[in-house]
Formats: sequence, structure tokens, C-alpha cells
Amino acid sequence: MIVHLRKSITESQRKEVVRRLGLIGAAIYYSPGTERTILAAIGDPAATRKAGIEELRGVARVIPIDTPYKLANREFRPDDALVHVGKLPFGGPKLPVIAGPCSVENRTDLLAIAHKVKKAGATLLRGGAFKPRTSPYSFQGLGEEGLSILAEAREETGLYVVTEVMDTRDVELVCRYADVLQVGARNVQNFNLLKEVGKSGKPVLLKRGMMTKLTEYLMSAEYVLSNGNYNVILCERGIRSFDTATRNVLDLSIVPLIHHMSHLPVIVDPSHGTGAWRWVAPMARAGVAAGGDGLMIEVHEVPEDAFSDGDQSLLPRRFAAMMKDLRKVATAVGRRI
Amino acid sequence: MIVHLRKSITESQRKEVVRRLGLIGAAIYYSPGTERTILAAIGDPAATRKAGIEELRGVARVIPIDTPYKLANREFRPDDALVHVGKLPFGGPKLPVIAGPCSVENRTDLLAIAHKVKKAGATLLRGGAFKPRTSPYSFQGLGEEGLSILAEAREETGLYVVTEVMDTRDVELVCRYADVLQVGARNVQNFNLLKEVGKSGKPVLLKRGMMTKLTEYLMSAEYVLSNGNYNVILCERGIRSFDTATRNVLDLSIVPLIHHMSHLPVIVDPSHGTGAWRWVAPMARAGVAAGGDGLMIEVHEVPEDAFSDGDQSLLPRRFAAMMKDLRKVATAVGRRI
Amino acid sequence: MIVHLRKSITESQRKEVVRRLGLIGAAIYYSPGTERTILAAIGDPAATRKAGIEELRGVARVIPIDTPYKLANREFRPDDALVHVGKLPFGGPKLPVIAGPCSVENRTDLLAIAHKVKKAGATLLRGGAFKPRTSPYSFQGLGEEGLSILAEAREETGLYVVTEVMDTRDVELVCRYADVLQVGARNVQNFNLLKEVGKSGKPVLLKRGMMTKLTEYLMSAEYVLSNGNYNVILCERGIRSFDTATRNVLDLSIVPLIHHMSHLPVIVDPSHGTGAWRWVAPMARAGVAAGGDGLMIEVHEVPEDAFSDGDQSLLPRRFAAMMKDLRKVATAVGRRI
Amino acid sequence: MIVHLRKSITESQRKEVVRRLGLIGAAIYYSPGTERTILAAIGDPAATRKAGIEELRGVARVIPIDTPYKLANREFRPDDALVHVGKLPFGGPKLPVIAGPCSVENRTDLLAIAHKVKKAGATLLRGGAFKPRTSPYSFQGLGEEGLSILAEAREETGLYVVTEVMDTRDVELVCRYADVLQVGARNVQNFNLLKEVGKSGKPVLLKRGMMTKLTEYLMSAEYVLSNGNYNVILCERGIRSFDTATRNVLDLSIVPLIHHMSHLPVIVDPSHGTGAWRWVAPMARAGVAAGGDGLMIEVHEVPEDAFSDGDQSLLPRRFAAMMKDLRKVATAVGRRI
Repeated sequence: MIVHLRKSITESQRKEVVRRLGLIGAAIYYSPGTERTILAAIGDPAATRKAGIEELRGVARVIPIDTPYKLANREFRPDDALVHVGKLPFGGPKLPVIAGPCSVENRTDLLAIAHKVKKAGATLLRGGAFKPRTSPYSFQGLGEEGLSILAEAREETGLYVVTEVMDTRDVELVCRYADVLQVGARNVQNFNLLKEVGKSGKPVLLKRGMMTKLTEYLMSAEYVLSNGNYNVILCERGIRSFDTATRNVLDLSIVPLIHHMSHLPVIVDPSHGTGAWRWVAPMARAGVAAGGDGLMIEVHEVPEDAFSDGDQSLLPRRFAAMMKDLRKVATAVGRRI
Repeated sequence: MIVHLRKSITESQRKEVVRRLGLIGAAIYYSPGTERTILAAIGDPAATRKAGIEELRGVARVIPIDTPYKLANREFRPDDALVHVGKLPFGGPKLPVIAGPCSVENRTDLLAIAHKVKKAGATLLRGGAFKPRTSPYSFQGLGEEGLSILAEAREETGLYVVTEVMDTRDVELVCRYADVLQVGARNVQNFNLLKEVGKSGKPVLLKRGMMTKLTEYLMSAEYVLSNGNYNVILCERGIRSFDTATRNVLDLSIVPLIHHMSHLPVIVDPSHGTGAWRWVAPMARAGVAAGGDGLMIEVHEVPEDAFSDGDQSLLPRRFAAMMKDLRKVATAVGRRI
Repeated sequence: MIVHLRKSITESQRKEVVRRLGLIGAAIYYSPGTERTILAAIGDPAATRKAGIEELRGVARVIPIDTPYKLANREFRPDDALVHVGKLPFGGPKLPVIAGPCSVENRTDLLAIAHKVKKAGATLLRGGAFKPRTSPYSFQGLGEEGLSILAEAREETGLYVVTEVMDTRDVELVCRYADVLQVGARNVQNFNLLKEVGKSGKPVLLKRGMMTKLTEYLMSAEYVLSNGNYNVILCERGIRSFDTATRNVLDLSIVPLIHHMSHLPVIVDPSHGTGAWRWVAPMARAGVAAGGDGLMIEVHEVPEDAFSDGDQSLLPRRFAAMMKDLRKVATAVGRRI
Repeated sequence: MIVHLRKSITESQRKEVVRRLGLIGAAIYYSPGTERTILAAIGDPAATRKAGIEELRGVARVIPIDTPYKLANREFRPDDALVHVGKLPFGGPKLPVIAGPCSVENRTDLLAIAHKVKKAGATLLRGGAFKPRTSPYSFQGLGEEGLSILAEAREETGLYVVTEVMDTRDVELVCRYADVLQVGARNVQNFNLLKEVGKSGKPVLLKRGMMTKLTEYLMSAEYVLSNGNYNVILCERGIRSFDTATRNVLDLSIVPLIHHMSHLPVIVDPSHGTGAWRWVAPMARAGVAAGGDGLMIEVHEVPEDAFSDGDQSLLPRRFAAMMKDLRKVATAVGRRI
């Protein structure tokens, strides 16, 4: 349940609330946006109902949460969460754009592309060092070397670095180099990984899986949140359907749904969401118009030579042109890029 | 195959082309946008290849069409088709908006809502007189009485009338009252109905089915086109997925795909595409940003009393507010409403 | 609601029940398997609840039906329905097998294949005279000529004839030739067609659509039943999924689900259900083991020359071998072929 | 590519084949069923084609493999693989049945259920010690204590133990207790976990994911195989669809498809495949009739009190009755239980 405390609550009254919740074994989480005036008590629902919290002094009201996600529920945090990556907030009026190649392939190319996407207006750099590949015989990523190249690109350009972590054993390593830990679509229900990135405290970009229902998705976010890490950015990247005309079906309706049900920011990845560069720009525009809190775009200098996902990568000049168009759409819906 | 004729072709040269194609049994269709300079010859592919059409005088070039849809292929009509409903074109810079209740329920309410959507900027009125209902015990529509009410609303407001036809036996009747024949999602592969609306010559609004692949969809359009009716407007209205968070998943990527593969205009129906009024406005904005050539929106004065689809119907004031926001998005992508 | 009458009910008591239901405008349907001791009253639920039917003499009990399907509900007909095609029952211990080509192509071939499938144990002959084809340029069927060939094959072989009807205008014509009217997957929600085959009284083979939910499927059956035709045979033929390894996914779990929720027989079509001859035999075995009440199998002498669906057609000798194996499986689950 | 060596090949000829393949950097895998007469060389396709292996002495023939899976391809191992768990083979005429509760809940109940499923004919015991739960607040499994209870049940009953591993860090631990490592549906593309269970050498039960295409599934198996572990058992457990009438759609057609494309055994899990105990028995029968190489069934003494998946758990007496029926179906298709 969610407990709204009065602003006038005294410290001893607050302690009493906490003590009572402790008696029934409920875990307590404070809503970060509200300076300790809202808390969630998670435990046995029957016991929490009977604990008489509502009658305590300093308690304004108690809201039972019917949804299985609690900390991801907007009731826990009535305002939009601002998730900060360094000084850059996700969830505010300005939309961050993450851009870069699917994989880090080598130092030279990554630095070159980093400069180009920065110039076009991107504020974060993407690039995989650990790659989840369908085939064991495909390029699996450069590992730590790739991370180190990303870090160098950050030094040179000031772009923040977003990169994927796939293994609980690598979380610490990736944390040393990255600004945002990406959990990929295939790991959206890799619960041990979610716990581990939760414990890390780093901002987490949690991509929706190809067949993740909305509730399941918020529950995966809940794994991170309930491990003490409130810095979760969601990302729609296309779901799997019966139609093979596009690689995935970009389900943009999840953007307003998430904004209604949760306080978490949600960005849009039209590159994976369509699987072909030609549809990236119109779907990026649609993503912004639907209310997306940012974009993630694959950009590559020579898409046909890309180690992975070349088909869906934009050339830098097309990325720059798209950014220009996006600014108009963002303005039309009261945001900016 | 598609045959491009030279502008300088003489009448006797043109007749020779037609004669030769006749010899191999090919059906001939002229591209409407090009004043008889492009034609499609549809018949046995091997025979058409061997017929030596390319060598004939007055023939500029011959393009084999690998896709199963021929007349719906952009090769047949390189420019965007403008489908006119009266004086109103679909496919141009100005986006028509179709609005109104799911069903025609009675004369008074329909006239009232017609005036309101007109005032807010709609240019066509929707309303079902024949309703495809999952249950035989649900309201099945007012039939001809409903059509007559729609026609009266047109007289009063100047809105064009869009209404569904479900039965080959009703095509003639519906043609007497409607400006646009709607073929619903459940009838997207009712091929006899497609032939019949093809023969009618009336503008056809052909909705995508819940599980229609892009190619299948263009083939359904081809049924109408090949029966001599080039006035086809496509409409994305959501596909069925594993997630029940929304009634359907609005697959906006089909908009740029159709624009690339075909010359036909495609509009967006976010009411069926989401199934809940709350998501209609953001998804309408996304539909326009993705390049949609118009919108179809359910509006009802008292959604909770609607005979059908109340959940997804906007109140007139919300419709008006949405139209205002849409104008900005349309401008941002070089269109207007 | 469902009304169970006592066996001892007098005629005047029965008339009183009917009169009362008439007063509240409920339509009355008698359960065919029970000699007028069970009836369904379909009308406004609130009114039927208040009508005091349970208190009437001769009424044993009243069961409210929460499902939207009423006559298809097992409560309406507690025993399995036996749907008779001539003297052949669907729904009993002996499993009818429908076999034949996708389309009727010509007289000679159809008669030849009819004799072969009969010899191998089939009891009904399939063959399309009206074909729902994705492309307007594909073979659309021989029409009435095809129907006449089917009727001739029946004369020669004694096989009952199953053939598809696609258009409300053709129902009367097809009834003159066929023993079973097939409503195809694409027409499962062509409600006017369902009404029309309902009125015809002929046995109806109603195929599930590619995207039909169980409840929707039973509602489509309800359209036929509520038009007075209780002779409905259901047929699982595969649903559409994300995987293209098979043409469709044969959803056999619907067989026990239908048996639980409804009294209607349900057969299995592994030809469309898989789309490739190689998987037909194992999936036919699985269909029988799951409790299917019969099978529908495509057989063709020269599959590579078939006008339609050659890939999924069995050679006659493979059909005969499959039938032999099926007999063992049928015996193992207490049925026979 | 696959290289068939002659039986008469000499050791020095064999070394030359290996040397040549080494020159082009190909990895070499020997087909386990064929005593070193078939090998797969995996490397750059162009280089392997040009390496002139076919001309070498002792080489019978060379088969290029077009599919992305190589070691899972039946070409690599023409006969059915027998995967042994202790003395128990999967893939032979006798079908192993894995049964037990979803989760290990406590020692007493697990030992009791183990004895009951053993008595009814099961040969392996299932039970989760590490549980992948959608909610972080749900029971997450007993961990090592659960593993230890499973090992005790093995001592008492002689049943082999199958249990899930979710984290690369736990593979070693689970190996100490289990006979078969289960990789669950949500981890089917957790590639690091697949590598780790590959290195372990233990038999692996690799469940198909809710959205895994056939090719992707075989590629996931390839991750295990290419890490040197050929003991892979596949398992169909239902895919996600648009219909919520069952929890998942059991896609039995994958059984004959896998048998055609691969040598790996594939079993069927009708408990997850349907999500409700009522449909487990008919779908288990269907699974055996389709050619499944075994079954995995959830059994619980008091399903309504189960910590997880109670709805789909059979009571022990229902499990025993099902086993009796299954024996007949197995016999009918030339297998036994």
C-alpha cells in the first residue's frame, strides 16, 4: 500500500509509522520525488490492511495498490520521474537522443560516429560491447576493449555512454565504463540480472521484450526499483507479430499507457522497432508525437559493412536530417530536442 | 507487367500495343494519374515476357512486377493517388478527418453529433447502419433507416457520409445513400464483397483486418482496383497481439510502408486501434506524424450509453481539443487539417 | 437463461412458461437432444431474471448463462451433439474423415481422387467450387460446374459432399448440390453469411479463423444456431503466429476446451493447420489423440500441379498409409475410424 | 560444412583433413553418433568452400550447411541422438516422463510427491529451487536448500532430478545436485547462460521461449552444442498468442519439424502449454501422438496451496490415470512409457 504522510508529520510520528509497518514485516520504500511524504509498504496485503496505519497521526491517507507493480505505479510517485544521467534528465521537456552503432567495432569508427551524432544533436552514445547474438558464430562484441573505446569517446565528445550488460558477472565491469546500463529485450525477464543492475544504482535502460505485456514490463522495472534503484528508463523497441513486413511492430500506444500507469520515462527505439532504415525517420516522428521521452537510434557510416543490424542503421547525414524534422514535431507537442 | 508509353505515341501504335497484349490474353488497365501513358498488362507472366512489347514503337519501357499486387503497386502509378470524395481529396496535403458515432442510433443524436464534429473540423461523418457484431444478440444496426438518417445529416451539414457495407446484396442500397463505402476489418478478405464494391465505382474505405499482412492487404485492395474502381482509401485500425492492455495494437509503421510500395492513401483509426478514448489523442498525433493521410475517429455525446464501442468514443469537447493539437503536428510534418 | 423443465410437466404448464417468456420478449430455443425438456430463453437478462420462471409449475431449475454464447453452451445441451450428415454422425465414437483436393479442377481428376479417398476410408469428399483466393488473378473456382462435378462424385462413390460457400447470394445454389456447407476461415465473422447458412438448415462446417478467439468462435456458431440451425460442426485449422516455420499453428488445445464449454463436435484440419504435407500425418494423429471428432485432409494426385494448396496435399498412397496409423491412435483413445 | 570421412580413412589422412581445416581457421566438431566419421567444420564459409577438402583422400563427401545451425542440423548426425541422463535415454522408443511440483516448497511434501509420481511411472523428478517469477515479491525458490531436498528425493526414489538454473553464477552449484540442468523459457536467449551450461557437460533441458521461432530455438541449442555439450533435450511448452483461453498455445507441430531438421530429442510440457490441469491429459496424449520424446508434467498434492502454478498442476491420482491412458497412445505410435 501507498502511505501519504502529512507535511506536518513529526519525526516521532514518522518513526511510529515505520515501526508499525516493521511489525508486520512490510518493506518500506520512499517516493523519491516527494521528500519522504509518500512511502510504499510492501508485504502481506491482509496484514498491511489490518495494521491500522490510516489511523496513525501524521498519516494523510492510505491507498491500496491493486496492481502487482507498486513502486512503478504512478500512485507511488504522482509526478513524472526525472531520471538523471549525469546532468541530463530523462522525463522532462527536453528529449535526449541516444545514437550510435549497434556494436562497437573499432576505435576509429566509433570516435568518428560519436562526433557526427553529437554534431547532429545526440546527447548520448550507444554501442554494444557485449552483444546478444542469435548465433554463437556471429560477432559477440569486443567486451572490455569495447567498453574502453566507449569511455574514450565520452572523454572526447562529452556524450554519455549507454551500453548493454548481459551477465550478472559483468555488471560491476560495465558500471566502471558506462553511464547507463542497458538491459536488452531478450533479458527483460532475466530476473537475476535485473536484481544486479538494481543493486548497482546506475541508471538502467530497460528495453521491452518482443512479447512482453505491459504489466510484465512494469514488473521487470519493479525488480530494479525494489532493489533500491529508481533510475529506470523504459524503451519501446517493437513487439513480434504475424507480419514480417517489418522486423517488429513498434507499439507506440504503450507510451501513453506507461505515462498513465507509471511515473517512469519511456523512450522509443524505431531502429529495432522497424528493422529497416527507411522507416526509422517517420516512426521516430510518430514516437515523439505519441509522447515519447527520448529516442534511441542506430547510426553507422557504412551500414552494409556493419557487424550487426546494418539494415536498420541510418547514415549520419540521414540522422542529421531526421533530427531537424524531429525538432518541429517536438515543438508541436510542447517538447524540444 | 507495367508498360510506359511514350508521350509521342500515335493512336495506331497504341492500338498495336493493345492488340498484341490481347493476343496473349492479358487484361489491360490504364494508370489513372497519367493520361494513358502507363498501363498494366495482367496475364500469364511467361507469355507477357515473350510478347515482345518492349520492341514496339511508342513503348518507352516495360517493367516486370514481382509483387502479387499490380495495380496497387507504385510502379503502376508513380505519383500519390488522390482519391476524391466529392470535392474532397484523400492523399493530398490537407488531411480529411472522418468522425462520428460507431453506430447510427437515432436521428436526433446523429444530427447533433454531426454538427459538433463539423464545427470541430471534421469533413466526413461516420456511422454504422449495418453493424458487424460478435454476438447475434447485440444491436445489428438500423439498416436503411440508418442510411437515410446519415443522408439527412449530409444535407444539413455538408459532411460526406462514410458507412459500412457487409453484404454483397446491400452494395446497391448503400451506394444510394453513402459517399464512401466502408469495408470493415472482418471483411477484408470477403472477396465477393470486394469485387462488388469494385464494380460500384464508389470510393471505398478498406480497413485492414486484425491479422492482415501488408501484402494480403494490398491484394485485397487489388480486388477492388482490378474491378475497375481506383478509388480506394486504406485504413490502419490496429492488429491483434498477445497484449490485452489495448484492444488492438496500432501498427503505424504500415503507413510509411504503404506509401513506399503503393500509391494509395492510408488513413489511421486510433479509436479501434487502441479501444479506449484516453489513448486516442496521442495515437492520432502519432498517426499524423507517421504520415497518415487522414483520420477516422469515434465521437459520441454520452459514451457510456453508446450502443457499441462507447469505451473508445471521444466526447465532442475532447474531439475538438484533439483537433486543435493535431493542427500543430500536421504543420510540423508539412500537412494541414 | 436455460430452463430445465420437469419430465412430468403438463402441456398447459409448458404453455404458461412459454407465455411468460413471451411477455418479456425472450426468444425461445429448445435443446434438440432433450425432447423439449431444456429450453433457452434469450432476451434482456434483467427482465428474464425478474420474470419468476423458476417459481412456475413444471420448471425444475433455471440456470443463468454468463457466457455470451447461449445455444452453443453445454448447459443448453448437456450431452454431446450428434450432427448428422445423411446417416453419418459427427460427434460420436466413429470419426468421419473428409478428404479430397483443395479445389475441384476438372471432372476426371475429381472422380479419380474420390474413389481413392473412399477406398482408404474417407466418408466425405471435399473440393472447392468457390475459392477464396488472396489474389484476384488466381483461380477462383469452377463455380456451379464444380458443384455439379462434386454431386456426380457423390453419386458414384456414396461420399457426402463438403464444399465452401462464400457469398450470401450463393447459399441456395450450394445447398442444391452439397451435403455440408463449409464456411471458410476468412468468413468466420461474415455475419450475414452465418445468418444465411443458419436459415438454410443444412449441416455447416464452420472453420475457425486465423485470429479467432475461442469465445468469438462460439459466438459465430451462435449466429448459425440462433437462426434455427443446430447442425454445426466446428473445425480447428490453425491460427496465425509469429513463426513462419509452419503456415499456421494448429491449436489443438481448442479441442478439449470446446468439448468442455460446448456440445458441438470439433474436427481437425492438419492440412491448413501446418501448410506442408510432411507434417499432416503426425498432426492428424495428434488431433485424434486430443479428442478431435473427425479430420479434414487435402489429397491430390499430383500436388505440384494443384491449382491451389499443393504443398499441403497428401498423395493418395500417403493418405492411405496415414489412415492405417490413425486407426491405431483412434482405438487407443476409445474411438474408431 | 559437414565432412563425411570414409570408414577406410587412415589416421594420417584424417590428420591432413584436420590440418587443412585448421589452416583456414575452422573449428572442428565430431558427430557423436558416428565414431569420428562425420565432422563439422565451422568457419568462414567462403574459405571452407575453397579449402579443397572434398579432394582429400579419405573424404567421402562434403555437404555445405545452409542453415545457421550446424551441429543441431540432422546432416551432422543423421540418426536420432540419444541423450542419456544416467542410464535413461531420451530419444529412444521408451518415453521418459518428468513429473513433480513447480517449486520445491519443503522436504516433506517433495518426498511424498516424488514417491507418488515414481509409482505412477515417472522416471525423473522436477522441482524448482531457483524460480523465475514475474514479480519480485513472489516466492523466489528455496535456493541451495531446495537443491539439497531434490538430491535427497533422488536417493530415496531413484528418480533423476531436473531443476532450473537461471544465473551463470549458479551453474556450478546446480551441477552438484541436479542430473539435468533446465534452462527456462525466459532464458532461451540468455546466451551467456547457454554457454555456461554448454561448458558444464551436464544434460540440458532447453525450453522453448514464448516467442521463439524454430530457427532461433535451434540456434539456442547450438550455443550449448558448440560449447562441447551434445546432451541437449528440447521442450515445447507453449507459445504466446492472441487468445487468452489457454495460458499458452502448445505448438505441437514443432515436434515433427524438429525431428526432420535436427537429431535432438524434443519433449512436451502440456502443463505450461495449457496453463490449466483440465487440458493437460488430452494435450499430453496429443504430444505423444505427434511424436514427442517424453513429457514434463506438473503434479501437486494440493494445487490450490501451491506456491506457484497451482492451476496447471495435476493431482497425483489424475497423473496416475493419465499415465495409464498415455501407455495406449504410446503403443499406438510404436513407442512405450
